[in-house]
Amino acid sequence: MKISGNLIDLFNREIYAADIVISNGIIDEVKRSGKVYRNYILPGFVDAHVHIESSMVVPSSFAEVAVKHGTVAVVADPHEIGNVLGLAGVEYMIDNGNSVPFKFFFGAPSCVPATALESSGSTIDVRDIEKLLSRKDIKFLGEVMNYPGVIREDEIVKKKIDIARKLGKKIDGHAPGLIGEKLIKYVKSGISTDHECSDLEEARFKLKHGMKVLIREGSAARNLSKLHPLLKESPENVMLCCDDIHPEMLVEGHINIMAGSLINQGYDLFDVLRAATVNPVEHYGLEVGLLREGEPADFIIVDEPGRLKTVETWINGEKVFGDGKLFFAAGKAARVNKFNSSSITVDSIRVINRTGRINVIDVYDGELYTTHFKKRWSEGQFVNSSLNDDILKIVVKERYRDMPPAIAFVRGFGLKKGAFASSVAHDSHNIVAVGTDDDNIVTVINRVVQMKGGLAVTDGMVIKEIPLPIAGIMSDVPCGTIAEKYLHLSDMVKYMGSQLKAPFMTLSFMALLVIPEIKLGDRGLFDGNKFEFIDLFDGIVE
Amino acid sequence: MKISGNLIDLFNREIYAADIVISNGIIDEVKRSGKVYRNYILPGFVDAHVHIESSMVVPSSFAEVAVKHGTVAVVADPHEIGNVLGLAGVEYMIDNGNSVPFKFFFGAPSCVPATALESSGSTIDVRDIEKLLSRKDIKFLGEVMNYPGVIREDEIVKKKIDIARKLGKKIDGHAPGLIGEKLIKYVKSGISTDHECSDLEEARFKLKHGMKVLIREGSAARNLSKLHPLLKESPENVMLCCDDIHPEMLVEGHINIMAGSLINQGYDLFDVLRAATVNPVEHYGLEVGLLREGEPADFIIVDEPGRLKTVETWINGEKVFGDGKLFFAAGKAARVNKFNSSSITVDSIRVINRTGRINVIDVYDGELYTTHFKKRWSEGQFVNSSLNDDILKIVVKERYRDMPPAIAFVRGFGLKKGAFASSVAHDSHNIVAVGTDDDNIVTVINRVVQMKGGLAVTDGMVIKEIPLPIAGIMSDVPCGTIAEKYLHLSDMVKYMGSQLKAPFMTLSFMALLVIPEIKLGDRGLFDGNKFEFIDLFDGIVE
Repeated sequence: MKISGNLIDLFNREIYAADIVISNGIIDEVKRSGKVYRNYILPGFVDAHVHIESSMVVPSSFAEVAVKHGTVAVVADPHEIGNVLGLAGVEYMIDNGNSVPFKFFFGAPSCVPATALESSGSTIDVRDIEKLLSRKDIKFLGEVMNYPGVIREDEIVKKKIDIARKLGKKIDGHAPGLIGEKLIKYVKSGISTDHECSDLEEARFKLKHGMKVLIREGSAARNLSKLHPLLKESPENVMLCCDDIHPEMLVEGHINIMAGSLINQGYDLFDVLRAATVNPVEHYGLEVGLLREGEPADFIIVDEPGRLKTVETWINGEKVFGDGKLFFAAGKAARVNKFNSSSITVDSIRVINRTGRINVIDVYDGELYTTHFKKRWSEGQFVNSSLNDDILKIVVKERYRDMPPAIAFVRGFGLKKGAFASSVAHDSHNIVAVGTDDDNIVTVINRVVQMKGGLAVTDGMVIKEIPLPIAGIMSDVPCGTIAEKYLHLSDMVKYMGSQLKAPFMTLSFMALLVIPEIKLGDRGLFDGNKFEFIDLFDGIVE
Repeated sequence: MKISGNLIDLFNREIYAADIVISNGIIDEVKRSGKVYRNYILPGFVDAHVHIESSMVVPSSFAEVAVKHGTVAVVADPHEIGNVLGLAGVEYMIDNGNSVPFKFFFGAPSCVPATALESSGSTIDVRDIEKLLSRKDIKFLGEVMNYPGVIREDEIVKKKIDIARKLGKKIDGHAPGLIGEKLIKYVKSGISTDHECSDLEEARFKLKHGMKVLIREGSAARNLSKLHPLLKESPENVMLCCDDIHPEMLVEGHINIMAGSLINQGYDLFDVLRAATVNPVEHYGLEVGLLREGEPADFIIVDEPGRLKTVETWINGEKVFGDGKLFFAAGKAARVNKFNSSSITVDSIRVINRTGRINVIDVYDGELYTTHFKKRWSEGQFVNSSLNDDILKIVVKERYRDMPPAIAFVRGFGLKKGAFASSVAHDSHNIVAVGTDDDNIVTVINRVVQMKGGLAVTDGMVIKEIPLPIAGIMSDVPCGTIAEKYLHLSDMVKYMGSQLKAPFMTLSFMALLVIPEIKLGDRGLFDGNKFEFIDLFDGIVE
């Protein structure tokens, strides 16, 4: 088979008309042809760090969309499903990914559970890490989020890192804001990447001390507008990633959007495309071809280098996408789950008025952190949501051992009626709900329970939902459908009064205890500054 | 190749374990096997009358969903696209349908345009009909909606019917409520089917006089609950169809739902399945196999006869769907269109207060007919929407020759803010919009103009839309995505105050002049009782 076009040669940094001869999925020969072609051929894009689970679809459905955007491979850390199902969850992702012609490279999640402060569904222990990293198809130890543990040389963290080093696997980092001596110690432990830089100086420091920096542009965090100068300063040490990409963003584009934006900003075409292809392939040692003889025939055809509109995507010498048509289909995904929550009643989320002021969580649109304020409740036997102050009840219901719900109050959601709930709740994925009254909160939580995972909204009249039957965090329907459903439910929350841009995303971070200042876990209200659980009432008499 | 299962033999009316041997897409042999199988094999379902365009997706995308429900063939009348693009539109549907392994049998639309009272994009004349019906793959003359024309023996109608008779093609009817001598004359002209019966006595009369009755269960009309006794009274003369099926209904089910419901009501399994398969194949002479030796291997495998949950769908000996997986994909649909409307300004839809009362359209949820009432406007230089009375401005903007908008008022939409518009507007598919104020009406109409067809809603803050770039009535994205978008936009209209169950459907019938009592066409307000255009003001002084 012969493919012709203007080849963008990322190694010799030139573009020339070429014929590419492919046999048995491998590139046999790349010949200069001297002809004139319309389209351009270049290596396919690689997302250097993604949690597939955030797209709310399984890997095979993720691939259906990704190839349309010219992505041929992803470096994926399955730590969300790991928190629900442990090793079995990781193996589920690998098997599901193997059912389609797309290159998934999964890692071994290093921090499951993320903390001992909340109830997760499973643990990935040192033995599991060893089992995973011993596999040829597992390329790296997933982001070591427990950077204090690395610096303190915690035994378990050290063991996991040592296994990766011994087996010659890369170790991914996660160290937001970390610089100075601590960062140097973190790097010396063997950790070689970071995708959490939100500041240019921070990124420069990390690069200087030998880290690769993954520039991130996803649904939860967008760092490209600050970090783009790295493409000029240190192009060989930069990769592109999305980290978390929600379905409605994925259907619009992927790494192609980032690369296109950088090229249009005037960065060197070859530098940008290398960051989006060669750099992750070489860093992680991925079996992805880069258009050289003897390599797998993985490449894409685009209409012009500046637009990066994918005309065709080829993986292992097979056209998987071309002229708007997909040449494979995701099969039926098996429904694996761990969901043992019963329905709850209104009695179980009632809050009796006690002595002192209430510790309230203050949320900010688009931010993971919260602040803490106190509010005196003068009247009544029970404390309820107060619409005038926008102080609403928030409930976290444990879903693995069916523990009773934890209850607190939150300001900033803006609901004027109804309630909404989700079993996508980082990192343990228990059920979290916010609402204007107990009846509606119970309604949405019980709908999530009934679905064994998913999103639900009610305005008091109708109820809308997205079932997420796979681990309570992923759907088995196509990404386009989930994207539309997700926008629909988000809009419903907005019609109910919320001004938040992505209310379900904000909700999903309410139980993420490690980000200060105050969060609600399944075991109660947590003060992230003091790093301890606190009572809902401060007990102070006026 | 050999397929085994419990064969539901619709000709010998028995179920037995069988091996079916297939070669080159044809059934070579059906052998009784004496073994025990879990699944059942039966002919695939045939929708006996459908306008694919109502699903808002092209035929190839329709097929992707239909095979999941066990449908292998449809008898389709492309008269919606005919009104926009004429013969070229019909040919577009045929070509697009041929791009996927599914059996589309298109007819020649007999009534394009539906009336001379409105501006359609194209005409399908006698010569076009002859050209179409001469094709081997065109099986029938599409529903002859102009039944008064048949009874009056209008020359053009007669010519079209005569061509069909001469060429030995079936002629479809459309005669809601027609019985007695007129119906007898209608049948004698050669028309052999009717899918418009909403009353059991009417259906019995039609059957008695030799018509086949197609029981309809679709988005716009649902007749199964009244007509089901026909399955016992005259099973050999009954077929099943949906007529109009919107995307959100199609993704849930198709003919399988109707057949399953009849079987569960206790009707004879073989009678029901024959109505859903054998009867349309035999009536229209379709090249669809019915599980007999020598026929194309078209069949489905279901888990149990009473549930009709499709496990596999086979067409011409190829598995096109199995275990939740689709084995083909709709390609990129070409964007054919006829859309010559410019943007409009607020000035163009202003209504100056004149002498007399205003003729207002009263709409009813789920009904095609409207009633007529008059309202005196006492004050002001201009007449605007009146939210307290729920009297809203309605605008129809011609889209083929860019004629100025027609304006009237309507009660029953219930909007408290914003506006919504659509270029799906039976039968000519001009743009129709309803809103609470001129600015928002202009906004949504201009959004539809900009998209060259589609649906748009604004609540005054944000705009949401569904582009329908193919003839202004169909999308080129998958049906599941369109279904979700459609539900989303419908909900937005409801959040804006409308109590209508399907506000876009109600809107799409506002310009359907032939259904009384009063409608708004692109040329003005039309009194369906008097069958004449009327002024917006009645001119009567108090």
